[in-house]
Amino acid sequence: MRPRIYLFGDSITEESFGDGGWGASLTNHFSRTVDVVLRGYSGYNTRWALKVLDRVFPEVERGGSDGAALPLAVTVFFGANDACLPDRYAAFQHVPLYEYKQNLHSIVSALKERWPKALILLITPPPIDEDERLRHPYAENPSGLPERTNEAAGAFAKACVETAGECGIPVVDLWTRMQQYPDWRKAYLRDGLHLTQDGNKVVFEEIVKKLNEGGLSLEKLTIDLPLLADIDHGDPLKAFQ
Amino acid sequence: MRPRIYLFGDSITEESFGDGGWGASLTNHFSRTVDVVLRGYSGYNTRWALKVLDRVFPEVERGGSDGAALPLAVTVFFGANDACLPDRYAAFQHVPLYEYKQNLHSIVSALKERWPKALILLITPPPIDEDERLRHPYAENPSGLPERTNEAAGAFAKACVETAGECGIPVVDLWTRMQQYPDWRKAYLRDGLHLTQDGNKVVFEEIVKKLNEGGLSLEKLTIDLPLLADIDHGDPLKAFQ
Repeated sequence: MRPRIYLFGDSITEESFGDGGWGASLTNHFSRTVDVVLRGYSGYNTRWALKVLDRVFPEVERGGSDGAALPLAVTVFFGANDACLPDRYAAFQHVPLYEYKQNLHSIVSALKERWPKALILLITPPPIDEDERLRHPYAENPSGLPERTNEAAGAFAKACVETAGECGIPVVDLWTRMQQYPDWRKAYLRDGLHLTQDGNKVVFEEIVKKLNEGGLSLEKLTIDLPLLADIDHGDPLKAFQ
Repeated sequence: MRPRIYLFGDSITEESFGDGGWGASLTNHFSRTVDVVLRGYSGYNTRWALKVLDRVFPEVERGGSDGAALPLAVTVFFGANDACLPDRYAAFQHVPLYEYKQNLHSIVSALKERWPKALILLITPPPIDEDERLRHPYAENPSGLPERTNEAAGAFAKACVETAGECGIPVVDLWTRMQQYPDWRKAYLRDGLHLTQDGNKVVFEEIVKKLNEGGLSLEKLTIDLPLLADIDHGDPLKAFQ
């Protein structure tokens, strides 16, 4: 039975199977080795994620005792909503920074308790293009002020990186990584927050890198059923005995 | 727990999570309702598929008794390799037409036996652009003759449609559907056999149509956890009680 990799996060995870999306690219990358399972919930912050954790990962999916495969990895990609400012129109999604960190710790602990050998990979929120957020609000916004700022996203990204360090787990610092490219606003962000195809590619590549470093590379995973290249043209059925 | 839709087929299924791929689009379409599970095996024909069926769908994944969700649907998308001509360089993949039909019947029966309520959806092989196959052989081909012809693919497509009728299950007649568009060779095929993004879109749309007709529409499926739009801004946690 194939092992799984869960993608747990907010809208940037939920929409990761759109054209060129990082979730689809991961599925394509692992097409004969791993099932990539989408658990993205648009708009969710870590407070809500923690509330629903047992429903997202129910007992019956834990694997192990019943012969079902254990998950190899879980990506945990929250923070973009927690970082909504508490005095702007998306305040209901805001979570204070100290609670965000606490919640991330709780999510990581719960996942490690379920699956001690799974690689838990944190991903920080992406940077924010405030001008574009004003052009693409998702609710009426007469204030003229964006609901998110890049500075706030950066504080949450830093807390995410710190949490990973405290937990001894890997992290993709997307906020920092994307801003290394001068044209990051246009190249990587579609509406100042969600990802373009190039932005998706960055996420995909960074995740593959971290999975590889954690021992989850194509070379080490078991291929499901014989590859065409390994099938004897003179006696194909031999491969399926 | 989320229900599943399995995608069982050859390379056109295996690569369906590439950019704009139909598998990725299905996952995106059902992002909060269904897990789309990739079971594509490049180069496989129905003879090999039948040999590995119990390994592709092991007992532990059958669902039901252990509380795991039953699959809602399985797409069965074989025939492009069966239709390789028996006297050309890909002859080892060829399966005679009568056996192809018999094998499809056996696959459908086995899936119906496992999951009596699941929608089994057959998909015919796509049409073939023979000139492009000569330009994109996947092995040395000094003969100057393509390993597949559109006529042979059409015979297998017809047998697939007949099988669906005999089994009383739906079918996407991709061979016929694609050729309704005059520029199908360039528009839908990348190498005379595998799909372009537009070709993938056709497959995605036809599958969604058949699933809808079979009662598997977004309107009727259960959404996993509250949508952002249904969360009370004044008391968000109420939605998660």
